[in-house]
Amino acid sequence: MTTKVKIDDELVVGGDEFIVIAGPCAVESEDQMEQIGKFLSSLGVKVIRGGAYKPRTDPNSFQGLGEKGLKILKSMKEKYGFKIVSEIIDPRDVEMAYEYIDIYQIGSRNMQNFSLLKEVGKTKKPVLLKRGMSATMEEWYKASEYIRNEGNENIILCERGIRTFEDYTRNTLDLMSVPIMKSKTGYPVIVDPSHGTGRRELIGPASKAAIAIGADGLMIEVHPCPDIALSDGFQSLGFKDFEKLLAEIRQVSNLLRKLD
Amino acid sequence: MTTKVKIDDELVVGGDEFIVIAGPCAVESEDQMEQIGKFLSSLGVKVIRGGAYKPRTDPNSFQGLGEKGLKILKSMKEKYGFKIVSEIIDPRDVEMAYEYIDIYQIGSRNMQNFSLLKEVGKTKKPVLLKRGMSATMEEWYKASEYIRNEGNENIILCERGIRTFEDYTRNTLDLMSVPIMKSKTGYPVIVDPSHGTGRRELIGPASKAAIAIGADGLMIEVHPCPDIALSDGFQSLGFKDFEKLLAEIRQVSNLLRKLD
Amino acid sequence: MTTKVKIDDELVVGGDEFIVIAGPCAVESEDQMEQIGKFLSSLGVKVIRGGAYKPRTDPNSFQGLGEKGLKILKSMKEKYGFKIVSEIIDPRDVEMAYEYIDIYQIGSRNMQNFSLLKEVGKTKKPVLLKRGMSATMEEWYKASEYIRNEGNENIILCERGIRTFEDYTRNTLDLMSVPIMKSKTGYPVIVDPSHGTGRRELIGPASKAAIAIGADGLMIEVHPCPDIALSDGFQSLGFKDFEKLLAEIRQVSNLLRKLD
Amino acid sequence: MTTKVKIDDELVVGGDEFIVIAGPCAVESEDQMEQIGKFLSSLGVKVIRGGAYKPRTDPNSFQGLGEKGLKILKSMKEKYGFKIVSEIIDPRDVEMAYEYIDIYQIGSRNMQNFSLLKEVGKTKKPVLLKRGMSATMEEWYKASEYIRNEGNENIILCERGIRTFEDYTRNTLDLMSVPIMKSKTGYPVIVDPSHGTGRRELIGPASKAAIAIGADGLMIEVHPCPDIALSDGFQSLGFKDFEKLLAEIRQVSNLLRKLD
Repeated sequence: MTTKVKIDDELVVGGDEFIVIAGPCAVESEDQMEQIGKFLSSLGVKVIRGGAYKPRTDPNSFQGLGEKGLKILKSMKEKYGFKIVSEIIDPRDVEMAYEYIDIYQIGSRNMQNFSLLKEVGKTKKPVLLKRGMSATMEEWYKASEYIRNEGNENIILCERGIRTFEDYTRNTLDLMSVPIMKSKTGYPVIVDPSHGTGRRELIGPASKAAIAIGADGLMIEVHPCPDIALSDGFQSLGFKDFEKLLAEIRQVSNLLRKLD
Repeated sequence: MTTKVKIDDELVVGGDEFIVIAGPCAVESEDQMEQIGKFLSSLGVKVIRGGAYKPRTDPNSFQGLGEKGLKILKSMKEKYGFKIVSEIIDPRDVEMAYEYIDIYQIGSRNMQNFSLLKEVGKTKKPVLLKRGMSATMEEWYKASEYIRNEGNENIILCERGIRTFEDYTRNTLDLMSVPIMKSKTGYPVIVDPSHGTGRRELIGPASKAAIAIGADGLMIEVHPCPDIALSDGFQSLGFKDFEKLLAEIRQVSNLLRKLD
Repeated sequence: MTTKVKIDDELVVGGDEFIVIAGPCAVESEDQMEQIGKFLSSLGVKVIRGGAYKPRTDPNSFQGLGEKGLKILKSMKEKYGFKIVSEIIDPRDVEMAYEYIDIYQIGSRNMQNFSLLKEVGKTKKPVLLKRGMSATMEEWYKASEYIRNEGNENIILCERGIRTFEDYTRNTLDLMSVPIMKSKTGYPVIVDPSHGTGRRELIGPASKAAIAIGADGLMIEVHPCPDIALSDGFQSLGFKDFEKLLAEIRQVSNLLRKLD
Repeated sequence: MTTKVKIDDELVVGGDEFIVIAGPCAVESEDQMEQIGKFLSSLGVKVIRGGAYKPRTDPNSFQGLGEKGLKILKSMKEKYGFKIVSEIIDPRDVEMAYEYIDIYQIGSRNMQNFSLLKEVGKTKKPVLLKRGMSATMEEWYKASEYIRNEGNENIILCERGIRTFEDYTRNTLDLMSVPIMKSKTGYPVIVDPSHGTGRRELIGPASKAAIAIGADGLMIEVHPCPDIALSDGFQSLGFKDFEKLLAEIRQVSNLLRKLD
């Protein structure tokens, strides 16, 4: 039995509803977010993502807008009613971010940043814990225990691919972790096909496979203009592609969820 | 466009029909195969697998019945009308095996056994080429070119998982290879969830994900009594479990194939 | 040319002297450290290590003594004149730890904890940056740039093995990173054969190979009683074994360094 | 205790002498081999390598001269007294090759080509068994058992790097396998720094580390003109570089072997 993680009175992850989280890799500006917010709202997407703090491999890459980015996200929530997911990378930011967002995202690089895990564990706010890029499922589970041990059981796991020798895809999406981690932890598990494949043309196939294997939702990168995105444009969908994919996702998830 | 690989006048892989190949890891005896053949035939399974030559890590493990195993398979074909898939591991056996089987299987350990690839390439018989356990997709493609270069284009690819650091599953099933290899080579791609996961309870979820991502078929290990199988029993399904799974596979594949 | 990292007026890493850092995985008590300190001092070891903050996979494992551990380390410095290396895992602890230790250690799990890297980068104190367990050399280099970009160029790199499919050893020690990273960054590179192999009997062979390939030093886990150590005892050397190994290390390093 | 593998009355691998095997990746022509043979002979190298059958990833790459290549190698033996190592990739060639070479090489891709292992196992000729590029040490050991089970215990193991996520080097040279496999099997273990690193500038450092960790020998690719080599030129040494390295190898191996 999957635990239901209640985001607020309107939304539950891990229940009957299949959750699609969408938005850009990074919050870049008010204009960009307004375009995306308006678009996603028109499609009935309920949860928006956007990075305000970007843990980039290279210190000279765009690092995110910081608190200003969180404020932009909050304005999307106020205008369109979205729930907000955003990544926090420093334990000192957990308290500040509390007011802006609905779900703390712990990114792949920070899956074993135990200070950060403890800090979000002390709140009751839902936490989206991504799998470390080289974490075994056992380590991922143990990382979730750092959060739960502090009293916060509102945990959503997110499979985003692991590092292997195969370099055609950015990561190797390990979809088996969906049934395994659901069974092992009871938490809902969603899939990130954008990082999991690193290639726009694979997001559709990966999404369908994720639904079929029992994922509770998907997190997909969408950008009004992927080719000029400040980060990860190569794995983001443009508006038309996303609209088409979302229709397919809903169709497949409706068909398959009826079977169970 | 996927190439249609014609097995005989009755069966095509890569076309409209979703192919389920089933059977034991190893042919152990006439009795065992008769039980399995009768059972699979009653379910309408058209292609049976069974290893006569088993490339085992340990030289002291059961190595298969050899030509006697192929004869048993042939008798199944004669009695029930199955198409036969069986692995060949020595180029000297290609000619002999020609009379017994319908599809040559090249196993994971032999994906770069170029002498063997050339030898099956010289025949026109369909070849099921499994991905090497640490082969990139590029290497897998190049291995298929060894067969095609000899004049045989009747190639079916089989994703069976790759070796990674994760040890909860026997291999990490890389389902993205299905759309990638179909697009790159044009050959049909099937999935082996038994080796791909190494765990009985994951064969069902993996099979559904494989269908959803566009695989042309599945190859599943079935044994009348998995717990006493001479090899790989831990990843084989018993009859009841297989019957239940086959019904689900047909249901899911019918639903999803209608969408395209 | 390797940059010389000056620890203080007496000690330089990356120069003529081959540096051996030794000590327990975790600081467990004053008694334990007094035993180790007295022993290492008698052998002329100049740099002592000991974990006060332990980033353990499991939240229920021993997490270290925290600031109390740092105080014990400081007392070793005062009594025996050691330089102190200890790991910091939270950016909020950088300032506090400044007074206790001579070299900040950034552990493998935190190689991409960019908040932490920036914080130690703002000090001028030497930083020992361990390679992430699944970090490419390029990512390791980029992580070091997070420190340097803040103004701190006193960086020592530490190879500690990477995660691979091989499970006989805890990690696969990638000794090629020594010449590669020295050439790419100019920083001194030391090797940790304890984590790099995870097996006591391999620490000696790994240490000699590290010297031969040009490492600037070694970091070795030593414990008065490895079998009752609170963490990583299986890869720690007892006193007798360490004494013997240290003599060999000095002999080999004297012989080989004369050749260059 | 390492087993001594006797090549002939003059040469033993696994004894007091440190063995250097050198030669080109592929035998390309009589002229090329004459240049190399003359050069290596002048340096006192006793064992020459050269591929007559090249298992190339791409079927359109140069595949070797076949038996003609073996004949060229044999002429080198007759003229200069070399022992000959060459790779066999087809079980049907084992008997034919018997007359030409002194040591059968089983390459990385064929470590689990069990038909081939059995065939060389039926002879008494020494076999150089390279580690599979993704083989665990346990699997490598079991592969050697296929040879020994047929009655041939003249086995030399060769570490040549494993496949990992790190792509700066062609493979990750796993030097720990030297002491581990020597202890586990008793067979001598040599190291191939050419394939193990895939980079000319790392062959020297890797060779010294291999000596220091206790390898019984090295196998190094040498070509009169690496930049026009028909295969693997990027990891081959030219004559001047090899001459310089050989002097260093002898110096380091003399110094370190005295210590034991």
